[in-house]
Formats: sequence, C-alpha cells, structure tokens
Amino acid sequence: MQRIFEIDPWEVVTHKLDKENKRVQESMTSIGNGYMGMRGFFEESYSGDTLQGLYIGGVWFPDKTRVGWWKNGYPKYFGKAINAVNFIKTNVLINSEPIDLASDSISGFKLQLDMRRSILSREFIVEKGDAKLKVSINRFVSAAQKELFVDAYQFENEGSTPFKLTVNTQIDADVQNEDANYGERFWKVLDKSQSNTKGHVVAITKENQFGTPRFIVGNEMVNKTDLTAEKTDELELAVQNQFSKELVPSDTAYFEKRVVVITSRDYDDQASLIKAMHELAAKIADEKLADLQAAHTHVWAQRWKKSDVEIDGDAAAQQGIRFNLYQLFSTYYGEDDRLNIGPKGFTGEKYGGATYWDTEAFAVPMYLGVTDSTVTRNLLMYRYKQLDGAYVNAKEQGLKGALYPMVTFNGIECHNEWEITFEEIHRNGDIAFAIYNYTRYTGDKSYVLNEGSKVLTEISRFWADRVHYSQRKDQYMIHGVTGPDEYQNNINNNWYTNYLAQWTLKYTLEILDEVSSEQAVQLNVSNEEKKQWKEIINKMYLPEDKKLGIFVQDDGFLDKDLKLVSELPADQLPINQHWSWDKILRSPYIKQGDVLQGIWDFIDEFTPEQKKANFDFYEPLTVHESSLSASIHSILAADLHYEDKAVEMYERTSRLDLDNYNNDTADGLHITSMTGSWLAIVQGFAGMRVRNNQLHFDPFLPKKWEGYRFRINFRGRIIQVAVDHVGTRITLVSGEPLTIDVKGQNVQLDSETVTA
Amino acid sequence: MQRIFEIDPWEVVTHKLDKENKRVQESMTSIGNGYMGMRGFFEESYSGDTLQGLYIGGVWFPDKTRVGWWKNGYPKYFGKAINAVNFIKTNVLINSEPIDLASDSISGFKLQLDMRRSILSREFIVEKGDAKLKVSINRFVSAAQKELFVDAYQFENEGSTPFKLTVNTQIDADVQNEDANYGERFWKVLDKSQSNTKGHVVAITKENQFGTPRFIVGNEMVNKTDLTAEKTDELELAVQNQFSKELVPSDTAYFEKRVVVITSRDYDDQASLIKAMHELAAKIADEKLADLQAAHTHVWAQRWKKSDVEIDGDAAAQQGIRFNLYQLFSTYYGEDDRLNIGPKGFTGEKYGGATYWDTEAFAVPMYLGVTDSTVTRNLLMYRYKQLDGAYVNAKEQGLKGALYPMVTFNGIECHNEWEITFEEIHRNGDIAFAIYNYTRYTGDKSYVLNEGSKVLTEISRFWADRVHYSQRKDQYMIHGVTGPDEYQNNINNNWYTNYLAQWTLKYTLEILDEVSSEQAVQLNVSNEEKKQWKEIINKMYLPEDKKLGIFVQDDGFLDKDLKLVSELPADQLPINQHWSWDKILRSPYIKQGDVLQGIWDFIDEFTPEQKKANFDFYEPLTVHESSLSASIHSILAADLHYEDKAVEMYERTSRLDLDNYNNDTADGLHITSMTGSWLAIVQGFAGMRVRNNQLHFDPFLPKKWEGYRFRINFRGRIIQVAVDHVGTRITLVSGEPLTIDVKGQNVQLDSETVTA
Repeated sequence: MQRIFEIDPWEVVTHKLDKENKRVQESMTSIGNGYMGMRGFFEESYSGDTLQGLYIGGVWFPDKTRVGWWKNGYPKYFGKAINAVNFIKTNVLINSEPIDLASDSISGFKLQLDMRRSILSREFIVEKGDAKLKVSINRFVSAAQKELFVDAYQFENEGSTPFKLTVNTQIDADVQNEDANYGERFWKVLDKSQSNTKGHVVAITKENQFGTPRFIVGNEMVNKTDLTAEKTDELELAVQNQFSKELVPSDTAYFEKRVVVITSRDYDDQASLIKAMHELAAKIADEKLADLQAAHTHVWAQRWKKSDVEIDGDAAAQQGIRFNLYQLFSTYYGEDDRLNIGPKGFTGEKYGGATYWDTEAFAVPMYLGVTDSTVTRNLLMYRYKQLDGAYVNAKEQGLKGALYPMVTFNGIECHNEWEITFEEIHRNGDIAFAIYNYTRYTGDKSYVLNEGSKVLTEISRFWADRVHYSQRKDQYMIHGVTGPDEYQNNINNNWYTNYLAQWTLKYTLEILDEVSSEQAVQLNVSNEEKKQWKEIINKMYLPEDKKLGIFVQDDGFLDKDLKLVSELPADQLPINQHWSWDKILRSPYIKQGDVLQGIWDFIDEFTPEQKKANFDFYEPLTVHESSLSASIHSILAADLHYEDKAVEMYERTSRLDLDNYNNDTADGLHITSMTGSWLAIVQGFAGMRVRNNQLHFDPFLPKKWEGYRFRINFRGRIIQVAVDHVGTRITLVSGEPLTIDVKGQNVQLDSETVTA
Repeated sequence: MQRIFEIDPWEVVTHKLDKENKRVQESMTSIGNGYMGMRGFFEESYSGDTLQGLYIGGVWFPDKTRVGWWKNGYPKYFGKAINAVNFIKTNVLINSEPIDLASDSISGFKLQLDMRRSILSREFIVEKGDAKLKVSINRFVSAAQKELFVDAYQFENEGSTPFKLTVNTQIDADVQNEDANYGERFWKVLDKSQSNTKGHVVAITKENQFGTPRFIVGNEMVNKTDLTAEKTDELELAVQNQFSKELVPSDTAYFEKRVVVITSRDYDDQASLIKAMHELAAKIADEKLADLQAAHTHVWAQRWKKSDVEIDGDAAAQQGIRFNLYQLFSTYYGEDDRLNIGPKGFTGEKYGGATYWDTEAFAVPMYLGVTDSTVTRNLLMYRYKQLDGAYVNAKEQGLKGALYPMVTFNGIECHNEWEITFEEIHRNGDIAFAIYNYTRYTGDKSYVLNEGSKVLTEISRFWADRVHYSQRKDQYMIHGVTGPDEYQNNINNNWYTNYLAQWTLKYTLEILDEVSSEQAVQLNVSNEEKKQWKEIINKMYLPEDKKLGIFVQDDGFLDKDLKLVSELPADQLPINQHWSWDKILRSPYIKQGDVLQGIWDFIDEFTPEQKKANFDFYEPLTVHESSLSASIHSILAADLHYEDKAVEMYERTSRLDLDNYNNDTADGLHITSMTGSWLAIVQGFAGMRVRNNQLHFDPFLPKKWEGYRFRINFRGRIIQVAVDHVGTRITLVSGEPLTIDVKGQNVQLDSETVTA
C-alpha cells in the first residue's frame, strides 16, 4: 500500500511533486470524456520518469503479433490504443530556458483533480536564477462538447526581477507508444498549417498489413493570450505558436489553448473532417472560457446527481467510491455504441485499451444502476455489431457459431496466450448473461427479442459445437478451458463454464419461443438443432461433490494439496510475484472467484446452504490477485451475513488505485474493476436484487461507518437509499411510484420516504 | 512425400539443380565430423533461395528470450547454434563475372554425397557468353583431423573460346542466423591477416548480458592452385585471396582450399589458440591432398565396418538406413563429452542446435549398439557435468534437486513454452533411465555407482518434491505435466511421467545400496529422505482402466471423444497443419507414443496381454506427427508379431528426410529421430533385448525384403546378425565367446556362425 494523495471527499490532491512516483501521480490524475482522455502527464517537457498517454476512444493500430512459439489459431495482430497526436504540448520558458519540474527549483506545488467538476489543476512557483514565476494551470476535456480540450494558464512574476516569459505551444505528431512490438511510430502527417495564434495537424495512422481501418485525426488549436505572438515555425511533424512578453515583478499574464480533435470515426472523408474541424474551431474560438467550462461542469453535476454515493464517517471510503465512479464515467458514459470500456480506460497503454469480458461481467451490472438504460444497451449493441468478428474467431478454432474475443477492438481476437485466447471461453457465456441481466433489470425486451436473440443463437451454436460427448459418462463435457480463475489453465469441466454454457442454451431456447416469426425465420434454428441443444442441456456434466456440498471448480481440483491461503507464509504473497508459473498452476490457490463468480451471477438459483458451503470452501483458497476478485466476494459475504468479511473485501477493492494496492497503478488505473466498490455497496451492503421485476433491498451498515446513501436508476426512476444507525430510508427522487421489497416486506414507494 | 534424390545404396545423388527445393537439397547433402559441419550450401554466392548453415559443435550464443507474454520462471535466453565464420566461401568468376547457378546457364549438373567416404561432390558446366567452364568440386570435413576442412576444385575450359578464370576465396565473418530474435550479428573480428595464398580470421562471439562464455574461433586457410595469385585486399570482416589465369580451350586448372578451424573450447587463451592454428595450418599445408583424404575415408571405413546395416531386395530401405547412420555419425561420434546431439545436428538452425531429451530416449539405445561404450558413456557424462544447471532449473520452479532442461547448451533451460519448459518433466526420468539402459547393456557399473548415483539422487530429490499428496485419494500424484504426447498439455497424472518418477525413486534406492561408503557420504541421503521416497513409491498413483486392461494416459483421457484416426478425413491430416491448437489439444489424437513409450522402455515388465491391450487401444489414436513416433511403434508392433504394422512404421521412419515426409526437411534433417530406423530393425525386426546380462534375438524378415544384416557392438564384441528366407545366422566377428538367446534358445557364440 502506498498513499501519495491526501484524503478528501471530492478531490485527489497532493502538495508534493513525487518524482519517484510520477507515473502513479499521472495515472491518478487522468481525465477523460469517453471520446478522449489523458494521463496527468505535464504539458511541458519533463526530464524525469514519465509516461505520456493521450488516447482517443476507438483509434487504434493493429500491431503485428509477437510470440515466442506460434500456435495454430493465434491472431495475427494485437490491437493497441495508440498515443494520439500530442495536442496538449506546451512549454513555458523563462529567459528562453524551458522550465522542467524534474530539475528546476520549485515551491508551492499543488496537483489537484476536482472530481465533482472534472478539472485538473496544477500550481507551482519556479525559480530560475533571479526569476521567480508562479504558474497555475487548469485543464479539462469537455463533457459537453466531446471534441474539445481546454488548457488555461495564469502566470505571475512573484520575484523582484523582470524576465522574459515565453510560451511555446504545439500540436505534435512525433509520438510513440512505450509498448509497441516492433518499436514503430504509428502516425503520418497528412496536412498541417499555422498562423500566429492558430494551427492544425491532420494525421493518419500508418499502413498496416491486416486490412483494418486507418484513422485520420484532425487537431486544431486556437490560442488566446495577452502575450505577444513571436514565431510560428513549422516543424516536420508538428505546428507551433510561440508567444512572449517581458514580465516585470507582480505582472501577470494568461495563456489559453483550446483544441478540437476530430476523427474519421465521425466523418466519411478527409475533406469533410477538415471542414468540420475548422468550423468547430471557429465556433469555440468565439466562446468565453467561463461558458465552455460551465457547460462542461453542468454535465458532471447531472451525473453526480444521478449516481453519487455518500459515505459518512469514513473519508477514505468516501474518496474511494467517488474516485472509482469519476474514472468510470470519464472512460465511458455510453454515448457511442462503437466504444467500450478498456481495463485501463484512457489512463495507460496496458491491455491495449481494448474490450475485455470485464465489461459484461463487472461494468454492465453497475452501469445498469447508475445511468440510463441506453448506456448499457449501447454496450450490448457493441457486441451485436461485432458478430462478424466473433464468427471469424470461432472459425479460427474450427468451431461453429460465434466466439467473442478475449481482447478486441473490432470483434477479431487480439490476444495470444493459448490458455486464454482459445480456452477462457466462459467470456462467451458472460456476454450472453449480460443480455439477460439487462433485460431483468430494465424490463426492456426490445434488445433480447431482436439483436440479442441473434447474439444468443450464435453463442449457443458455439457451445453446442464446443462441448463433446463422453461415451463413458454418457454426459456432455467441455474440456480444455480456463475459468475466471486464471491460476488454473487448460482444465476439464470447469463448473462455471459448463454451467454458463448450459444456461445459455436454456435461455436461448426460451427467447426463441418469444421472438417474432420474422426474427425466427432470420435466426433459422432448426428443430434438430433445438433438439440437440436440449440433449446437451439435459446431459451437461456439472462437477459436484455431494459430501462437501460444493460444486467442483474442475475435474482435478479436489485432488490438489488443499492447504489454505492462511497457511502460506506472508512473504510468499502475492504468489504471482513470488512463485513460478508452474507452482501457481499446480497450487489450489484461486486468483479470483470462479465457482463463486457463477454463484454471484445466479445468486437466486442456489440455497443459502449451497452458497455457504461453496463460499466457505473456496474463499479461504482465494488469493484475490485479480483486481476483479474482492468485490464479488464482498457481495457474497454480505449475502451470507459475513459482514466483517464483506467490509474487508470492500476495502480491498475501493482504494485499489488510491492506495496503489497492487503496486501497478503506475501503468494506469484499474478501470473495469472500479465498478466493484459500487457493486459491493449496492448489491453487497444494501443487498439490492431484482427478482421477478421487483427491486429488493436488505441493507446493513458496516460497523465503522456512520451511514451511506446512494441513488440508483431503475426503470425510469431515481431512487435514493440511505442507511444509517437508525435504519434504512428509501426515497423515490423522481419517476412513477412502485412497490419494492425491503428486508422481505413489500413497500410502496411514492412521494414519501419509506423507512425500514 | 517428395523424392528429389535418386535411389542408390551408398549415395545421395541427383542430376538436377532443384531451385524450388534448394534448401531441401542443402539439408540432404550436409556433412560433418562431430566437431563441425555444414549444410550443402554452395561455396559461391547463389542469388536464389538458400540457407547458409555452417556450425561448430558447442559454439553458441545466448539470444535474449522473445515471448508474447512472460511467465514467472521463463529462461532469460535461448541458446542458438550460430552460423560460424564462413570459411568455405569461394567465388568463381569468368571474365570477372561471378558464376551464380541460380541465374547462369548450366548443364551436366551433378550433386553427390558419397556416404561411404563422406565426400560431397558437385559438377556442372557453366556458360557465360562464349565461355564454357566445367567445374568439379569435392569437399569434406576430416574425420581424422577434426579441425580440417578441405575443398578441391577442378576446372576445364570445355568451350572454344579462351577466357579469364578467377577464383576469389575468403574467410568471412559477416554472417548471421536467419533465426535471431533481435536480428543481431553474433561475431566480432579480433585479428586477421593474409598473404598471397594464405589468410586467417580470428573472431569472437559478441558480448552477452547473461554471463555465458564467449567463444573465440580461429580460421586459417591455405590455398593451393596453379592459378596466379592476383590480389589479397583486406575487407572489413573478411580476408581474401584471389587467383586467376587465362584459360584456353581444353586447358585445365585446379584450386584447393584447406582450412583449419580452432576454437577456444580447446585452448585457454587467444595466443595459444592462434599459435595452434598457425601450427596446424603449416602442418596440413605440407601434406598431399590424397593423404589427407585417405586418412579421412579410413575413419569412415572403420565406422561402417562396425555398424553398417545391409538390406537385400529393397534399395530404398537400404539407402534410408545408411543415410540415417551417416548423418548421425556426422553429427556425433562421441569424441567430445562436452557435446551432444542436437535434433538438427549441423544441418539447420531450428531447435538451436541444442540438447534435447531425444538423446537419452532415442540416441542412447542406438549408440550403445553401434559404437564403443565410451561414446554413450560420454553422453551420460555430459549430463553429469551439467548438474549445476539442472539445480538452477529446479530452483527456478521452486523445487528441490535437479531438473534437466528441455533444451540446453550448458544445463540451463532455454525453452520458453510453459507447457513444455515447466511441464514436460518426464525428460528427467528419461535421463535417469538412460543410466540404467547403459548399465544394463554394457554391464559397466562404473558410471552408475559414481557420477550416475549423484545424477539419480538429485533427480529423485526433484521427483520427491514435485509430487503432491492427495488427501482425498491417499495417493501421491503429479499434476500439471505434458507427456511425450505434446498434443495434450498441462494434464494431471500422466501415466508415463508418474511411472518414470516412481521407477527413478526405486532405482535410486537400489543404487544407493550399492555405492561405496565414500560415495554414500557424499550423496548424503538421509534415512528420512529414503523413507519418504519409499512412501511415494508405495502410494504413487498410476491411472489404469481395469475394464479396458490399459494404463490411462492421463486423468481426463478416457472422457474424450475417442474417435479413431482412421475415421478422420484424409484432408485433415496432418492435424498440426489443419487444426487449431485448441482443437488438437481437446482431441484424443496422440502425437507420439506416450503410454507406449513407457511400455517400450520397460518392455520386459509387462505381460503380452498388457502390451497388446495398450497397443491396440493407443496406436489407432496416434497420428505419428512427431518424427520420434513411428520407430517405437514399429518395435512394439514387432514385439506383438504385428509384422505388417512394424514394417509400415519402419518405412515411415527410415526415409523421413530422403522423401521429405513431413515437408520440413528444408529446415534441416531430423537427426535424433534417425536412430529410429536402426532401432526398428534391431530391436523391432531382430527382436534384440538385453535381459539379465544376456543378449536376446527373435528375428523375422519383412515380407518384401530378401534379407538384412547388421552388426552390433556388445561388451567388447562385434556380432553380426544376418536374417533371410533361410533363417538367422549370427556371427561373432570379434571378441570373446558368449552365450546368447535366439528365439528362446540359449546358443553359444564363438568362432562358428550360429544358425537359428
């Protein structure tokens, strides 16, 4: 654990430039608006350790696969979210010497991310010789105008000597990714020009051999300042404007950079893209900074109104949940159904910024609660639109139907570890389950009966081909898989995978009975196919140990040497940093819930005894070395009234990045697992469930908290739940009255707050 | 199948320059003397497709590991046999234009490898404009003087116009490997100089970050010719001598290049290496070509006398077995106990020229029969000397004792696929078994009671730590392994591995009872340790299906969809070229014998019923897609009197490269699997076994053969076995009389030939 920011309910703030942990500071001060986003790296050059990271959603490059040993079926490329043209670059010079916070003498440093308004501020006083300059910078990417980035500087001569202040600002296409398999640069400049206060660079991603689309991005800056325009030299891959002024003591100056970023994702050709770029640049050039900022902060205020979670009596927990929600909304707020939620969002290169099953398994359950249903529906549409890629993936494995990828930008698999790419196929079931989950929560069947039925059918076709019949056991089995617990690979009959496969087939058959006759014709599922699916459903092998009363994670699991995690010496943890892969694989230690992931998904299908027996067996074997693990265990612990365990698991998930728990926040934030702290509070502590179209709550208050309040969006209503020592109060903030279940009692929710 | 050479009992010969299959021609015409060797690439530049390959045994470079996804425990480098300084480089020019057989007009082409004498010859007539030159070249690497390479040219003007003939010969360090992870060149020149007819280059392998030794190689050429010395310009990384002469019609000329290649493997410092190089160059400079050649061919004659296999009535089979023996002896004849047998020998880059378990499992059984026992003993010493590396490998996995590597030059593991590196640990048992095999065959206990007991003890310590105790079954198990059948990965309780582990522990305990008290003290195996080993031996889990009467390859095997290979459509074979890795892993298809490998190793331990049941079950599921597969099946089929099957399997193994059966001979020859055809004849057709210090034979004659004869070396004797339609005749060629068993009868073998 490493806490380098101060505890504050609405801010991520520090008064120290922590050069040792600069990358962590950058990750933690990332901002974004779904369309684009960036790490908190400095505008100016920084000679110390730093990771430049500035990304545009859906703009990627297919980097040629690099492997040690090729396996048939490996994908040919790994999609990477590439560093965008650096449009925030601005150097500040004192008497022509650029400031560099890594080496300059500075004081009064403050770095502050205002989560309520989504504005990143930085302040410092820098001294160079006799000169002493105070700099204050505010930056934001607008939540109101997705293409807009604004950076506003205030300068003041705080010393007693006059000096020349110079600001050199650029749009620079000479960027690269730290992680590029073959060390390539990804951008080529198509067009650029500049005038005294303006400039633009239009760049295109370089050619690739895989036939994936190339992206054009137009970046235009408009600069406003009371400094004097000085030069506009054109550089090879950049444009620049330079301004300067002699600053006498106490004199101030301002500089403001507004950038519009337009991409070919929204425009058909280069000409219309450039036209749109110029038009938008002209439009925002005329507006007042205060207005641009107000429009932006208004959107954020609305978001918080809908979904803020308040915690009394635990400032660290309060900051944790807000930070998680803030970063999630910065990454994805559902405006674009071609985008998804990368595990690092706009905060780092790792995982290539692509789509993982984290979305369906962890993000969908939260977005259902905190945003309008269209946001989640867009996430489902994303997969529907990528069906063609999923057919390719299945075919590459020699299988029918659709196999959704482990990692992707366009539906085509990018990942290349055979035990994951070919085997972690439960993802296909998780994607099916998200359709069910959406439908159950929203009551909206329009997706599942149309696009959803197609997705379900093709996933079912995959399962029906991927199972095999064991003559010896007279059962259907699934060999060669990796479950959510990636510490066991290439196992046979992973209970979770088999259960999900069987469930998908059942649910698809149910939906097929409900679809329109036109849709049925289009889906073209023959009676023979249905019969085969029923046969598989009836004879699916689900490993179980009656004596222990548990579902068995996989065929060999109970033969392991089942020593508990508590018996491991502390210096062996985390095992992924201390043990060989071989030792990890053979051990009984579970990276993240596997059987328990299934029990969470289908929590109403199991008896309390079953839930207890499985939790009591598996949790003590779980090392929680995936950021996705703790939240699920928190919810299940709460369900079983293991309240201390539930709180312990919540704490582990909510401040994962704020306290750099896994010692890897330098690489970027754990965006998709950030949903876990919300789920732990809402599904865990408050016991929210949706059963038979009805909302249920069964809250408890963690011992060290004074109280907590959250709002959820349920079928067009905003409902606030407040829990404290007095009890639970539920308020219908907006929308139609409804009957809900609180602690097992039906209660009518209308204009009055209900107390239970 | 692709047969590009003619059928001939003693030659590999073709009259066609097959530009499409140039690499296959090069592989097939490789020569070597154990110390160094080379593919049959041309001396002169060739603008078509070619793979330059010239290697020196034990001279390698640690190429930094390249993987897609790192796993804890992966080795940091992959040792590569690097292309040696090109000392065979010679360009022939007509009127100053270099000949290039890829583009020149040629006739009378002949490429001929004389296996009896180990001389590679090439003849052709090349026309350039009016000029017509006949060239004949003989090359050999001396079996009598390991450091010596000789290349002898004859030229004749076969046309009607005079022309200028130029020969430019070099020693050139500007070489690289096709397969280098980071595209590096591996040599730096330390010293070079030249005179009119001589020149040398001393080069050193470049620095590496892994602390493995750097190698210095000195190459000195002495050229003899009736051409006139013309120039000796020094190049940056090479030295050259150029000679020329105006050649009138019918005029002839000769050019002869003798090179000595000295390495730091044999000399302590650069100065003594250079001194030795000059001395040897001076010595061989004075000898007659005929004498150098006679000394070389004499050694080969001796080898053939000891170990030739003659087949009557099947010229293709005859060529096959001789080709295999020839290439094996070229790769390894046991002179240097620091060297081993790489799967490609000196014939290609693939597999890095390193040591695999092939040596113990497939080469040792043959070398025992065809060479003096010292040769095999040297192979065992090689592993003893690498114990320190094997400790490191075990430690990397968090385990005790010694884990011999999958791939190595120095004992340290080089391979980096987790399912192989960490899991294909049966290799440790195979290395133990080779000690037993040597002792059983030779009757010489001097190794096993000394160095061997140390190797056995450390391997046993590894096994005792690698097993785990399953409380549920009250048995010891080995999870997470890959057996010889690499088409099933990360399986639990591979029968072969478990059996070998149990056997190793047993054998080690037996040997510990026999070692000297000094050795026992040094081995330091406590009573407690012995007790633990006995406990493991008694409770080792060996999967078996009583109903089927078979040993089960691994825990999940019988749950597979057990369709036979014969039911697969022909266009799906080989499955490794048609199926995804995922599909292969889940299939029941076996790459090479696994349970049957164990039954071969311990053939006398099983009843005929057990052998039959297992063969009948597993062979029909085996696709034989490893070059190591067919031979073992041939032997077992012969043992079961499935004579047709035995012959089918023999044919599959003996001409694997001659007929380019696997379509990969371009990469190099399948050296280690070449032992298989000898084993199939000797252990299979002739039924040779050693039981209780006695040699046994039980021969049959394949239907389409007229007869076959082979010689084996057994405990100081040469014994010839001849089998034909009349019967079996066994002759003691040299050595003391002995009693052997033929077809179940004891017979006394002395000066008379025994007929059975």
